[in-house]
Amino acid sequence: MPLSKQIGKLISIRKMSSGVKHYDYLVIGGGSGGVASSRRAASYGAKTLLIEAKAMGGTCVNVGCVPKKVMWYASDLATRLAHANEYGLFQEADLGREKLTFNWPQFKEKRDAYIQRLNGIYERNLAKEGVDFLYGWAKFNSEGQVEVTKHDSTKEVFTADHILIATGGTPIKPDGIEGHELGIDSDDFFKLDKQPKKVLVSGAGYIGVELAGVFHGLGTETHMVIRGETLLRKFDESIQNTITDHYIKEGIRIHKTAKVDKIVKDESTGKLNVHLDNGDSLKEVDSLLWTIGRKTLSGIGCDKVGVEINDKGQVIVDEYQNTTAPNIYSLGDVVGKVELTPVAIAAGRKLSNRLFGPKEFANQKQDYENVPSVVFSHPEAGTIGLTEQEAVEKYGKENIKIYNSKFTAMYYAMLEHKSPTTYKLICAGENEKVVGLHIIGDSSAEILQGFGVAVKMGATKADFDSCVAIHPTSAEELVTLR
Amino acid sequence: MPLSKQIGKLISIRKMSSGVKHYDYLVIGGGSGGVASSRRAASYGAKTLLIEAKAMGGTCVNVGCVPKKVMWYASDLATRLAHANEYGLFQEADLGREKLTFNWPQFKEKRDAYIQRLNGIYERNLAKEGVDFLYGWAKFNSEGQVEVTKHDSTKEVFTADHILIATGGTPIKPDGIEGHELGIDSDDFFKLDKQPKKVLVSGAGYIGVELAGVFHGLGTETHMVIRGETLLRKFDESIQNTITDHYIKEGIRIHKTAKVDKIVKDESTGKLNVHLDNGDSLKEVDSLLWTIGRKTLSGIGCDKVGVEINDKGQVIVDEYQNTTAPNIYSLGDVVGKVELTPVAIAAGRKLSNRLFGPKEFANQKQDYENVPSVVFSHPEAGTIGLTEQEAVEKYGKENIKIYNSKFTAMYYAMLEHKSPTTYKLICAGENEKVVGLHIIGDSSAEILQGFGVAVKMGATKADFDSCVAIHPTSAEELVTLR
Repeated sequence: MPLSKQIGKLISIRKMSSGVKHYDYLVIGGGSGGVASSRRAASYGAKTLLIEAKAMGGTCVNVGCVPKKVMWYASDLATRLAHANEYGLFQEADLGREKLTFNWPQFKEKRDAYIQRLNGIYERNLAKEGVDFLYGWAKFNSEGQVEVTKHDSTKEVFTADHILIATGGTPIKPDGIEGHELGIDSDDFFKLDKQPKKVLVSGAGYIGVELAGVFHGLGTETHMVIRGETLLRKFDESIQNTITDHYIKEGIRIHKTAKVDKIVKDESTGKLNVHLDNGDSLKEVDSLLWTIGRKTLSGIGCDKVGVEINDKGQVIVDEYQNTTAPNIYSLGDVVGKVELTPVAIAAGRKLSNRLFGPKEFANQKQDYENVPSVVFSHPEAGTIGLTEQEAVEKYGKENIKIYNSKFTAMYYAMLEHKSPTTYKLICAGENEKVVGLHIIGDSSAEILQGFGVAVKMGATKADFDSCVAIHPTSAEELVTLR
Repeated sequence: MPLSKQIGKLISIRKMSSGVKHYDYLVIGGGSGGVASSRRAASYGAKTLLIEAKAMGGTCVNVGCVPKKVMWYASDLATRLAHANEYGLFQEADLGREKLTFNWPQFKEKRDAYIQRLNGIYERNLAKEGVDFLYGWAKFNSEGQVEVTKHDSTKEVFTADHILIATGGTPIKPDGIEGHELGIDSDDFFKLDKQPKKVLVSGAGYIGVELAGVFHGLGTETHMVIRGETLLRKFDESIQNTITDHYIKEGIRIHKTAKVDKIVKDESTGKLNVHLDNGDSLKEVDSLLWTIGRKTLSGIGCDKVGVEINDKGQVIVDEYQNTTAPNIYSLGDVVGKVELTPVAIAAGRKLSNRLFGPKEFANQKQDYENVPSVVFSHPEAGTIGLTEQEAVEKYGKENIKIYNSKFTAMYYAMLEHKSPTTYKLICAGENEKVVGLHIIGDSSAEILQGFGVAVKMGATKADFDSCVAIHPTSAEELVTLR
């Protein structure tokens, strides 16, 4: 009997005569936060049910971090192949960018198989920890119970001592633009079964930047339409400028201070003509990708149980993840504080520690300060703490000191075509406490983690400097800034 | 007039009538430590002379870290090329390892040109800072002055208020093995102008491991002869075992518990027959590379000035880099404490801060605790603090807690052939202070730097855990160890 059926059976057996089954902990949403929280709760002996509507692992595993990173690896490797001849390797084959080929359909299949393996691992880990799980759409009914419409359209009803709303978010498409439905979103990106020859990415946020980078790296003619002058507007200026300039240098066509105005499909070819509000138009576009933002999935009848939602559709929570209704909690993208997988995981674990764990965790809560995050652009960018602008606002220009380093990493010394490395350290006060760190360059995602620990510990510039450099690396520049 | 001649002229003009020129600071050895110390001294206004026998930058720039890392990049890229087809890239070309070609002569030329550029940059930086420099062999004469035999065989004599001995080290070859002179050392490795088809590397230390990795990665049939069972015997067992096993799995032939006994050259082919003490022999070896250790270059007449040398040939210094002779100092590989470029740089700068800098630096000295270091093996390994064995000895087995993580990095999820990632965190005492960290896997050198800062700050396990993970990375495993 497959695992999911076994679990199903288990649930029927345990069901009470009323037809309503009761749990200690009921988690709505099998994404990063929900899975982590339910496993942690079960590890303390709480009878736990996890309800997931689609695929276990949520956005991150299925249509986010994981398949994105896999595509980034392909794109990064494609970029490095173009360096091979200059590195003296395989010189009898022309591995130049213009000769690049990529077997998108085959690679997609492989990537999908990997994701399915992960889905299975998630299920097995839940089962191992003793978490019941169920696939279906959950919502609060008029009695305040949780009603689940399963994939076979049958319904089950549950109650619980504690309920977690971890339903996440979903990408949005713009209303009011003619033909907007002809575009795809980031979920659809992962369904593309052949490589578009020409794409237009609308949006300057990190999702757009990452997917445009992937397309370009794999040889697609890539355009971006952005409302402002730079990409990654929420990041420090050093990241905005470095990535924008490098993307342009690499050949991504960035249409600045522009918006998509109208999309028309050429029915004979299936291709799109995209008109911008600056009068330009792009012809024969294979895919228009909307990366203009995400919305929460909070429409599960929260009003039935007194869980308040703000005007952005986010579930309102306090610092302990309590919603406005007793014994109902929320975290992850649906509360929208810091929309990152590891934040949801950490918050989910801490919530279960608090609710079901030993006494010493009775006041545990997630700290949302100094959370590191990265962008898998080409090259990568990473950030923790305040941007320069935020630091100036908070401390005053005269109380901050900025250290900058721009250099060419040694790898590129052998290459005509360079990729930038730019590091910025922002320190505040007389003791030069590190309040912001912004890095761009190869391996930035890996480099940032350890520095994140140091910054979170309250590192000063002197602490950075007191660690001996590791030579030759890029990261060593961060401990020898002058 | 070339820069070196200008400086020469400058020196003649300044020369005193006695023929002996006097400086505030005289540095013997233009390697990492000597250059850093002389520049720092000059920045404080000290009249400084730097004497270098060969090429500016010393071992690191000319026959160490830098050209080694460049070769490592080539080898790493060669390894990644073999992944291209599985990543869906360039599938019409067979980029498998057995088809690999590498244009060694052309790449060597390029690498040499890069090193020469660096030599020039070193010279310009010295000149910019106002440091005089001179090429020649320095030694103490019977009057305790520094006598320099220049490359044109003429001599100059100098005195100084403060003298730094930073003469570094050099690789050794074994005595008493028949034919040992037929082998080359790591300095010679960088002179090889064509790629050996078959090499034997004798020695299990990091230099042997790095160069064997480079050879193998670039397609040379690579053998290693080691006295024990594992490579990298000075490192934590996790590094020893993981790298040894992976090298074998990758196809490097490791001849364990063996020594080279005799080397005979086949005069008709120029190739070597190498006999091991276990009765095995290796035929048609193109290059035998000795990586059995290094010795100091302390033979500059130290006895003439009362600078004592220990039985390893290392200059004896106290924690302030003072030798046993007043106003004579020493640091870097010639004292042999921690033989790393960044340590020599840091120690050199601190010495000059102390001797010539403002009052607040009057007691500055280099801290040799918790110095991170890495091995550019395939994959890389990095280490800081105590090995498990050292931690047990220091704290007792009952007072340490070890966290291990072994996993396959996401990059390899798309590949049949995996490369290992292994992390070990060693904590001591009730508060689980981090006393050792040992990591193996892609990007380990870059990953370690930030964690090094945290460990140096006195991080505990809780400090590691309090930083939110960066997903998906390998480094994030270090902040979620259980």
